[in-house]
Amino acid sequence: MDPTTDKHSGQWMHALATELYPVCRSITGDGVRTTLARIAREIPLVMHEVPSGTRVFDWTIPDEWNVRDAWIKDSSGRKVVDFNEHNLHIVGYSTPVSQHMTLAELQPHLHSLPDQPDLIPYRTSYYQENWGFCLKHRDRIRLEPGTYEVLIDSSKQPGSLTLAECVLPGSTRDEVIISAHICHPSLANDNLAGICVAAAMARHLSSQPRRFTYRFLFVPGTIGSIAWLAQNPQRLKQIRHGLVLTCAGDAGRITYKQTWFGDAPIDLAMRHVLSTSGDDFRTTPFHPYGYDERQYGSPGLRLAVGALMRSPHGTFAEYHTSADNLDFIHAESMQDTLEKALQAFAILEANQTYVNCQPYGEPCLGKRGIYRSDGGHRGGMFDELAMLWTLNLSDGGHDLLAIAQRSGMSFRKILDAANRLMAAGLLQPTESARHPSSSRDDQPPEACERLNASMAR
Amino acid sequence: MDPTTDKHSGQWMHALATELYPVCRSITGDGVRTTLARIAREIPLVMHEVPSGTRVFDWTIPDEWNVRDAWIKDSSGRKVVDFNEHNLHIVGYSTPVSQHMTLAELQPHLHSLPDQPDLIPYRTSYYQENWGFCLKHRDRIRLEPGTYEVLIDSSKQPGSLTLAECVLPGSTRDEVIISAHICHPSLANDNLAGICVAAAMARHLSSQPRRFTYRFLFVPGTIGSIAWLAQNPQRLKQIRHGLVLTCAGDAGRITYKQTWFGDAPIDLAMRHVLSTSGDDFRTTPFHPYGYDERQYGSPGLRLAVGALMRSPHGTFAEYHTSADNLDFIHAESMQDTLEKALQAFAILEANQTYVNCQPYGEPCLGKRGIYRSDGGHRGGMFDELAMLWTLNLSDGGHDLLAIAQRSGMSFRKILDAANRLMAAGLLQPTESARHPSSSRDDQPPEACERLNASMAR
Amino acid sequence: MDPTTDKHSGQWMHALATELYPVCRSITGDGVRTTLARIAREIPLVMHEVPSGTRVFDWTIPDEWNVRDAWIKDSSGRKVVDFNEHNLHIVGYSTPVSQHMTLAELQPHLHSLPDQPDLIPYRTSYYQENWGFCLKHRDRIRLEPGTYEVLIDSSKQPGSLTLAECVLPGSTRDEVIISAHICHPSLANDNLAGICVAAAMARHLSSQPRRFTYRFLFVPGTIGSIAWLAQNPQRLKQIRHGLVLTCAGDAGRITYKQTWFGDAPIDLAMRHVLSTSGDDFRTTPFHPYGYDERQYGSPGLRLAVGALMRSPHGTFAEYHTSADNLDFIHAESMQDTLEKALQAFAILEANQTYVNCQPYGEPCLGKRGIYRSDGGHRGGMFDELAMLWTLNLSDGGHDLLAIAQRSGMSFRKILDAANRLMAAGLLQPTESARHPSSSRDDQPPEACERLNASMAR
Repeated sequence: MDPTTDKHSGQWMHALATELYPVCRSITGDGVRTTLARIAREIPLVMHEVPSGTRVFDWTIPDEWNVRDAWIKDSSGRKVVDFNEHNLHIVGYSTPVSQHMTLAELQPHLHSLPDQPDLIPYRTSYYQENWGFCLKHRDRIRLEPGTYEVLIDSSKQPGSLTLAECVLPGSTRDEVIISAHICHPSLANDNLAGICVAAAMARHLSSQPRRFTYRFLFVPGTIGSIAWLAQNPQRLKQIRHGLVLTCAGDAGRITYKQTWFGDAPIDLAMRHVLSTSGDDFRTTPFHPYGYDERQYGSPGLRLAVGALMRSPHGTFAEYHTSADNLDFIHAESMQDTLEKALQAFAILEANQTYVNCQPYGEPCLGKRGIYRSDGGHRGGMFDELAMLWTLNLSDGGHDLLAIAQRSGMSFRKILDAANRLMAAGLLQPTESARHPSSSRDDQPPEACERLNASMAR
Repeated sequence: MDPTTDKHSGQWMHALATELYPVCRSITGDGVRTTLARIAREIPLVMHEVPSGTRVFDWTIPDEWNVRDAWIKDSSGRKVVDFNEHNLHIVGYSTPVSQHMTLAELQPHLHSLPDQPDLIPYRTSYYQENWGFCLKHRDRIRLEPGTYEVLIDSSKQPGSLTLAECVLPGSTRDEVIISAHICHPSLANDNLAGICVAAAMARHLSSQPRRFTYRFLFVPGTIGSIAWLAQNPQRLKQIRHGLVLTCAGDAGRITYKQTWFGDAPIDLAMRHVLSTSGDDFRTTPFHPYGYDERQYGSPGLRLAVGALMRSPHGTFAEYHTSADNLDFIHAESMQDTLEKALQAFAILEANQTYVNCQPYGEPCLGKRGIYRSDGGHRGGMFDELAMLWTLNLSDGGHDLLAIAQRSGMSFRKILDAANRLMAAGLLQPTESARHPSSSRDDQPPEACERLNASMAR
Repeated sequence: MDPTTDKHSGQWMHALATELYPVCRSITGDGVRTTLARIAREIPLVMHEVPSGTRVFDWTIPDEWNVRDAWIKDSSGRKVVDFNEHNLHIVGYSTPVSQHMTLAELQPHLHSLPDQPDLIPYRTSYYQENWGFCLKHRDRIRLEPGTYEVLIDSSKQPGSLTLAECVLPGSTRDEVIISAHICHPSLANDNLAGICVAAAMARHLSSQPRRFTYRFLFVPGTIGSIAWLAQNPQRLKQIRHGLVLTCAGDAGRITYKQTWFGDAPIDLAMRHVLSTSGDDFRTTPFHPYGYDERQYGSPGLRLAVGALMRSPHGTFAEYHTSADNLDFIHAESMQDTLEKALQAFAILEANQTYVNCQPYGEPCLGKRGIYRSDGGHRGGMFDELAMLWTLNLSDGGHDLLAIAQRSGMSFRKILDAANRLMAAGLLQPTESARHPSSSRDDQPPEACERLNASMAR
């Protein structure tokens, strides 16, 4: 059950993040395409272009934005702000500008952080016509009165929004979605780390047997997930579990934000993984702010999608500043996020509802060679206890995860017990587990029916 | 939403209590009529006389009792106990007496409090033929052996029980009842304070827009509420919420005794008011002892009526003694009780279930000008978060109070958010909220149906 | 309601345990028959012999085992291990042996406890052909190399398994089962104490009026309860409550292991008895290890059977060793276990669902002489409060145990109140309580219907 990922996955992810870091991404534009093209060299990726003006639920795909150059020159011709030095310098979706203006005229278009004077902030203006520059407060206060030349060589015109899917088909049509937002420029934790963990996860799962179909969504935040949801209404009913990956690489403890339901299987699985990991962790209830789990959990959809992260957005000083750089994310942290997500998926893959074929009293484990027989040693009981719990609760109303929860034992122990009992002919998957596309209610398998019938008399 | 009561309401209530204090009330008789007549000069009041002998559920309206004079004279002719000095001196419903008797013969008819020797106790004998006097224990032990002359000039004969209603019609037939017992003689906290808070509440609400019809019941305890309930069976199904007001004026912290259900809307609203007030408070579960909430919560009725008080009956030393006088109640305490009840009613007035008309993903708040758009400032999120919670939970299954509860935000913030979203066309009240007299299940309004239908395909 | 057991029951039980202690019991054989024959002199007992080879659910009744003699002699002819000294010396179900062997050849057949060198362990080998001896580790390490003569004069051949029932018919067909395992040799707490408490309980209940039929099962552990269950399928649906008695005599605090459900009436009753006893106690959730509650709680049966014990099996150092002897069990402990179980059964006997015949407001208790009438004494409220709770919650949805639970009052107080209210004509048992064999839903008795009908208009 333990996903044995490549031990070098962490380094691989960090290297991929390093390559993608300089690219200037936004919710549309070539930066996104460049990013997705690079990822497509690692995993099978299908790109979708959604034209500007397309209506997606309550939203409309905006014009496409691209920027080639942007700077502010002082009266001596020196560039005091230069997009080529850091792409956070430009306010996302800035309209084109080419003019001279006084410092006083320029000031309303400048953004800086007085409390963090050495950091460049991250700002956007997607839905309001505007332009601006972001810079270190330390540099801003050094600007002298005078005339400045301002250039923004950008375009904002009909084009399309780009998103991509990586689909790994499973043996059933039940789906797991993994979603990462791709719309941020040079910010490492938010969200290159999430993108790279998703890519590594797809790479790993592609070589594994899969009950579920895994669908990885690389989408611009909000508008991108809404576009995908609006264009795939028929897929939604197949989605069983989901995870948003965000802020997945900083050194903080891992955080799991629960689905809207709070007790969906992905919630139980993630909590089981985290609480048995021995590592510090935090879980939070769903709240309708954060990343695309907001969309998946909206009232008309209510998809069981949680969010896995390390430090939540907005809670670390580096958030949405130039300090969220490649030094802020760590191979070990991304590796850990990856493995914990994979462990939760492994639980969901293995989780099933079985029925005990000998439900009247305990079956005779001794005659099947799976029970010690000397009457009462203390200790060493745990494997047998796992079998007894699994037999006792395999009544069609408890899956293995529920059995782990009620027994207080690890899912792995319960799964091992179930496998041993299956091999001994004592458990059978429920009808619905055997024909997962069928919608029939759980029923005991036929093999058990004779005994049951005789008892019902 | 904040009920802006007259700042002088407290003084007004204390002055009214001061006027009513000397009146000798009981469960029947002219003291009750005098009291109600005085209140009727402040609020519209309809009196009801229920004749002695009338059967009300399991009870029968007793004979009417009135007392003109009562005293005990010692052998020297000095009045050692005098009803004209304090109406607690007479046991309520004492039968007429005029005779001479020894101290030994008199003793069984005397009531005093050895542990509180300076206080006159309060005693009644409604349903057993008897007579008696209450006096300070300090005075009682000074009585010398000898012959005493005893006079009780009372009458107990067919008449009627008096109760009164003040009805403030609302825009719907849904009712709130506020009930105060009026049967106690010169006891200030129990229950002149409750009577005066009820009167001030009616005075205030009469000038407010009202969704609910408010029905104030001024009734003798137990027999009076039972009489009203028995004679108004057709009204009971309209009662949505209710509050008994009792011991509403002492200096203790406020106490809310929950309805039988414990989670009725009035319970949620009162707990919300108290827990966000910043003041010390106490809530207690329902128990079938106390005042008329016992009757409203009985198994055949199960009306959602809580009880609002300060120090609960029986828990303060002054309870049912002459120390429960005008010094024991305070304008500020009555004002505070009044305002907190009004705040709870304001919540219930405003509470509704809405449906989100754009339930698939989040609606685009930006294009409606109700969302900041610069990408990620920390702080200042709260109004938007209130909108997001309200949108997320407006699925027909959560009213605003439930949204406040799950989000942990104040009802006021959620209400403000709902109003802003209504104005933006993003929320609609459920069918049942728009036609509150209809009994149809909650359904999304037609305006939302097209999108929903398209998603259902 | 208090079962007034003979004060000498504790001594009686200890004396019975003392008589039965030397008998060599196993899951089959004459030791069991001897034990049951002795018990049958105290209580009416019906013996059942289930032939070897009989299929019982997933199990098969094994061959019958008896042992006449067993020893190990050293080369000098001295018996170094002798079954006649202690029947724990022989591994249960040992096959016959008569041979000479070296110490090295003998060692794999010897069992001892290095950590408890002065105690003989208890071992069995029911379902694997084997033989062996148990001895003190101190003696084992003194064995000198050399040749030993080994004799086990046992037989293992077709016969039967013996179990017994004591049935005390009640006024209804609803059954309580009390189950004690009888398969252990000279071990006092596990389970002579349980057997003796069961016998004393049957002796006591036989002279009591009984609503329930009590069925005492004296069965070999696991195979015996399974045999009884398999052969009595038609009885199972009559079983309402049950208790396994085990480890019932040591000096530890009492422990109640809950049924599979955790909130069955027997769980509520036992918790009520223990939590109001003033004694230290422990409750544990159901888990599928322990004694025959495992079988009764299996998924195909789910009988509401808890387990009452003092120190749970496996948690005390004397468990399954020669130190679990007559000194380890105490008359007082067994008496206490007995009384607490009887108190729980007394609660279940008395527990009923009533309906309040005057459910609209409170009935007038005063006119029925069951209410004080002087208006407001503090204290002394408890009996009246019990009546008010009972009236308030007797709505057909709460039995007396539920009323005790919600009110926080003792079952006895609630029962007393219910009896007083019944006598006053204010309560009636529900239809189903009056005709307990009927399966109709609870309905208010006809006597109440007129008033109800008038209110429903």
